[in-house]
Amino acid sequence: MDRQELIDVLFNPRSIAVIGASETKGKLGNDVLRNLIESGFQGRIYPINPKGGEILGLKVYRKVGDIAGDVDVAVIVIPARFVLPVVEECGEKGVKALVIITAGFKEIGHEGQEAEKKLVELAKKYDMVIQGPNCLGIINTSAPYNASFSAGTPSKGTIAFASQSGALMTGILDWSLMEKIGFSKFVSLGNKADLDEADFIEAFGSDPDSTFILLYIESVVDGRKFMEACKKVVPKKPIFVVKSGVSEAGARAASSHTGSLAGSDTAYDVAFKQSGVSRAESMANLFDVANVFDDMHLPAGNRVAIVTNAGGPGILTTDACESNGLEIAKLTPQSIEVLKEGLPPAAAVYNPIDALGTAQPEDYELCVETALADENVDSVIVLVTPQAMTDETGTAQILVESHKKFPGKPLVAVFMGGNSMVYPRIVLNEGDIPVFDFPERAVYALAELYKYTVHRDSLKDETIPKFRVKKKEVAEIIEKVREDNRTVLLGSEAHAIAEAYGIQVAKIRLATSSEEAVDLANELGYPVVLKIASPDIVHKSDIGGIRIGLETPEEVEQAFLEILENAQTHRPKAIVYGVDVQEMAEKGKEVIIGCSRDIQFGPMIMFGAGGIFVNYLKDISFRLAPMTRTDVQELIDDTKMGTLLKGVRGEPPSDIKAIEDTILRISQLVTDFEEIVELDINPCFAYEKGKGISAVDVKITIGGS
Amino acid sequence: MDRQELIDVLFNPRSIAVIGASETKGKLGNDVLRNLIESGFQGRIYPINPKGGEILGLKVYRKVGDIAGDVDVAVIVIPARFVLPVVEECGEKGVKALVIITAGFKEIGHEGQEAEKKLVELAKKYDMVIQGPNCLGIINTSAPYNASFSAGTPSKGTIAFASQSGALMTGILDWSLMEKIGFSKFVSLGNKADLDEADFIEAFGSDPDSTFILLYIESVVDGRKFMEACKKVVPKKPIFVVKSGVSEAGARAASSHTGSLAGSDTAYDVAFKQSGVSRAESMANLFDVANVFDDMHLPAGNRVAIVTNAGGPGILTTDACESNGLEIAKLTPQSIEVLKEGLPPAAAVYNPIDALGTAQPEDYELCVETALADENVDSVIVLVTPQAMTDETGTAQILVESHKKFPGKPLVAVFMGGNSMVYPRIVLNEGDIPVFDFPERAVYALAELYKYTVHRDSLKDETIPKFRVKKKEVAEIIEKVREDNRTVLLGSEAHAIAEAYGIQVAKIRLATSSEEAVDLANELGYPVVLKIASPDIVHKSDIGGIRIGLETPEEVEQAFLEILENAQTHRPKAIVYGVDVQEMAEKGKEVIIGCSRDIQFGPMIMFGAGGIFVNYLKDISFRLAPMTRTDVQELIDDTKMGTLLKGVRGEPPSDIKAIEDTILRISQLVTDFEEIVELDINPCFAYEKGKGISAVDVKITIGGS
Repeated sequence: MDRQELIDVLFNPRSIAVIGASETKGKLGNDVLRNLIESGFQGRIYPINPKGGEILGLKVYRKVGDIAGDVDVAVIVIPARFVLPVVEECGEKGVKALVIITAGFKEIGHEGQEAEKKLVELAKKYDMVIQGPNCLGIINTSAPYNASFSAGTPSKGTIAFASQSGALMTGILDWSLMEKIGFSKFVSLGNKADLDEADFIEAFGSDPDSTFILLYIESVVDGRKFMEACKKVVPKKPIFVVKSGVSEAGARAASSHTGSLAGSDTAYDVAFKQSGVSRAESMANLFDVANVFDDMHLPAGNRVAIVTNAGGPGILTTDACESNGLEIAKLTPQSIEVLKEGLPPAAAVYNPIDALGTAQPEDYELCVETALADENVDSVIVLVTPQAMTDETGTAQILVESHKKFPGKPLVAVFMGGNSMVYPRIVLNEGDIPVFDFPERAVYALAELYKYTVHRDSLKDETIPKFRVKKKEVAEIIEKVREDNRTVLLGSEAHAIAEAYGIQVAKIRLATSSEEAVDLANELGYPVVLKIASPDIVHKSDIGGIRIGLETPEEVEQAFLEILENAQTHRPKAIVYGVDVQEMAEKGKEVIIGCSRDIQFGPMIMFGAGGIFVNYLKDISFRLAPMTRTDVQELIDDTKMGTLLKGVRGEPPSDIKAIEDTILRISQLVTDFEEIVELDINPCFAYEKGKGISAVDVKITIGGS
Repeated sequence: MDRQELIDVLFNPRSIAVIGASETKGKLGNDVLRNLIESGFQGRIYPINPKGGEILGLKVYRKVGDIAGDVDVAVIVIPARFVLPVVEECGEKGVKALVIITAGFKEIGHEGQEAEKKLVELAKKYDMVIQGPNCLGIINTSAPYNASFSAGTPSKGTIAFASQSGALMTGILDWSLMEKIGFSKFVSLGNKADLDEADFIEAFGSDPDSTFILLYIESVVDGRKFMEACKKVVPKKPIFVVKSGVSEAGARAASSHTGSLAGSDTAYDVAFKQSGVSRAESMANLFDVANVFDDMHLPAGNRVAIVTNAGGPGILTTDACESNGLEIAKLTPQSIEVLKEGLPPAAAVYNPIDALGTAQPEDYELCVETALADENVDSVIVLVTPQAMTDETGTAQILVESHKKFPGKPLVAVFMGGNSMVYPRIVLNEGDIPVFDFPERAVYALAELYKYTVHRDSLKDETIPKFRVKKKEVAEIIEKVREDNRTVLLGSEAHAIAEAYGIQVAKIRLATSSEEAVDLANELGYPVVLKIASPDIVHKSDIGGIRIGLETPEEVEQAFLEILENAQTHRPKAIVYGVDVQEMAEKGKEVIIGCSRDIQFGPMIMFGAGGIFVNYLKDISFRLAPMTRTDVQELIDDTKMGTLLKGVRGEPPSDIKAIEDTILRISQLVTDFEEIVELDINPCFAYEKGKGISAVDVKITIGGS
């Protein structure tokens, strides 16, 4: 069976063994077994304990091998030192999936790491998958089964949730029971020794019971795998993630917490964006989105109707809609007529619909159902403030009924207040109407759902472009640099690599004698630039190592000798390879194209305003390689330089196509050669449309071999 | 008595008349009287109703004039058409302050507006102040008295709250009763016919019972007065505001709601910033800040200790702290020693302190009290997740006790979960510990309190600089333009005005003949620029109306004639005043200095990157004039251009002092001359330090006379 088939067994087992089942209340082995029985699991349950006997009315087996029938899943809750032999037994028995709740692995240091490695080896050997170790367990409300030590089982719903923190999970479970949020799957990732977030995302993606995926993660195990899984799933279901460990101090806490190595946060941001995952900025945001999504369909568009019994909250909601990209719907004339007839004359019948402070449940009914029926409205937000004549509970009941009549359109309630809103909120929660205390949170959640639909509908089926390049030449240059025990490439080498990948570079050739320099200058054409070629001299101009605008063979010869003399005087110990002779590029718009390598996600390409502006404006954006052409276009469009290149104030547009191609070729280069850890083209001159670009200064660093 | 003395009477009356008191339950006149009696008001209460008799055990007077003793405050709850004569009666009686609850004034249109004007005239005539009309009333919990038709009275506390929306107020009151948030004053602003937000801000500022001011507004009545009041109060007490009507659609809703005219939102943002008011982005944020502030002292610094029973929430909190400008405190070695001794070995004793999932109330006690006692810690955030062994209520009780031992340091609780946190939250609320469901909201609130202390401590006593200028010359130029029936000034006029205010301008003189042009060029020095001088020709270069770099008298003469010819050919109907002769300024760093006029706040100065960058980079910032030197420095520092002017990458610094002076002089100019509705200096060249600036192109527009 492949991994996904094994996860399917984990989600829908016919039989579960609880290894470490205990009759002592308060022990995890007792909690897990009791949850499993109480969750209504219909398959066979095998408690395992060397003492034998009976627990909670079930026959206890001494070891998994003693069970006569098949065991699909084994939940392991025994001390860490006994886990490895038990896993081996499970393998021999033919168990398909293990849920290792036991802690004391990677998170305790070297010894635990070694044990965890062996776990993974055993899983491979016996064709099993492992969830955990060091996790809370797993809950599938549609199987149904609860193989965790959670306090309570979430109600059945359509949200699949996976969390790297067990404690957050318990908090969310507790909260969901109060807010009546239902879940389909509830997965505690633990140390992610074998099954990781990407595996579960893919499994959630094909799970018919899940329509919405929520994640809490502190890091990902494999960046590329994570992105692939998300890209596969996002066209079908939205994925919302809270990624913690953003801050420097946060990252420290993350690494001490589960021993995971957090990647740089920029790379995470880019990876989420590039794979269509929505990043929630806080747990509150994640919960709010879950609250709306669990109960409602996705909105068909961004046109919102607001129904209120007070002006102020209506204005706040309007503000929030506009700043979140939602539109205030223009009601049809028919709707306005209906409202005019049914509401007092002082009421506002244009959107926001203000039914006044005296509004009764039947007034709300009229407004809400008119809005829900209106073809110009995609979703409805209902605001209730507790005024003298307000019947909060009656209004809540009306909303539940109205929603049943128009189940296809999102209906979100905002009941502002405290004590008088407690019971109405319960009515709404039980009636599957998401309810908020403030308009801004409701609007945020609705807007996020809308944004997902926009993203999903804009997805294109696109491949990564492949250019014909001279890969072998690059390999040879890198090989030569390695033989030299260098990591920083000479200008001539870096430019040669760029050229081999079809990038328009200002040509550079290395001259080792003044005669050679003159020959090269004759070949490249005057004027030329001469630069000292030495990996040991970084700030070349400081020591008189650069001469520009050389017009004649005599000037070139003279400059060659002076540059070498200057290097000898100022840096007598530097290894000098000679002098680079470079053609002078015509000036264009200065952009920078760069690449760094993220530990989790691999090569990350940067584009932006070049030259002096790099540090001052920070007008830059990032994408992970390899990239599609759409990725490149979005990368450029993210920057203000992107606007400038299109031509502003009557200036002619620049050759954006050539910049795109350059970035795609760089993307291909750094994907082909993992050795390249850093690359900078700064400046890269962009010329008018049709005239291409010139990579003036290419710098490349390779990793130690 | 002055206004503030009258408001003091409104806050602390010895006697209150309720005009329109009613014995019918459900009528506002009954609600108000009952609230007044039930709130425990110790002064005399006079119900007024033409029917006489007795209501709620009190003798009813037929009119206010019938009352023998003094009446300090009259609350008016009678139909709108009876209000004016009753106000007149109140004036004659010597009532000091009126609370007009009655609606039907400005908000219903022209007729109401007129009535409202008369209200204000009567208030002036009789030296009274008026709150409202169209308001909910007023509550002072320390008098105590409740002269409103609110459902319930807030508990006594230190927050003064004023709101332009009555409905929001009822929602907040309801919420505050649940969350145990106390208020000192609760003021419904209504139509703000007489007393406005600025009056109440000033009164709250000197009110000994209020330590914290919250506002909900949709607009301000008088921008300058509002800023003055805030500037007076902010050194003593923080002011937090939610200003709605931000969006275009929101602004429309605001104007239909209370008939108030919303100013542009940028001006509000700048006004808040410049007067030290913190703007909350949502009601949720405002409430969260109130929640913390009501219970806690202001933090002495930004060093936070985090105590948790789970790693994930600890990381989330750390992230939130760093992104909100709070530091993770470095505990003293003594604290770490104490924690090491008292906690299990697996616990994390460095900050965040992770007492593990097994943490009991006494473990929390140890951690929290160690942190509260630690001299390196300014505030403590305690996280509790509902794990198997967690005693949520016991932990809540411990926190209440610990806070009592260390009342000076803010202690904020985050209890993540639902049903199991309901009772613990009640314990915390009653014990004056602010409690949140998510860490991010707690951190936001704490950070806002800290930011206030930083702002307060940075305040300087500064005056508006006054330069010696030639005001009369400017008045004459403007007079002349008005006589010409123009609003757009000629270049020579605009430059002359700038020069009169001591701004270094590229000199411009108007030539009406080619001989005059040559004379002027000789006087200014070559090279010069010639530009067509016509208010009707905006895009001068498009019609060949500009010639630059003219080096000789012959070139000037030739150019003069060509420019006039071009104007004649392309714009035969344009009124042409002649040709401007301008000295060529040496190139410098291009900045823009501009001014527009906001309807509420007056002249608003803009500074930023000039030239082509204005529209592309939008690297601009705003301040309201008149400005202090600190205002100008902050204005410049807000922009990236500000950084660039300091000299980056080894460039020499620009003459920032000269730019500051230019902006201050512009600030003085547009404050002196309200007629100037728009002003642009673009580009303004900034030269190296000590070499000043050159205003190359000054454009001025004046308002119709």
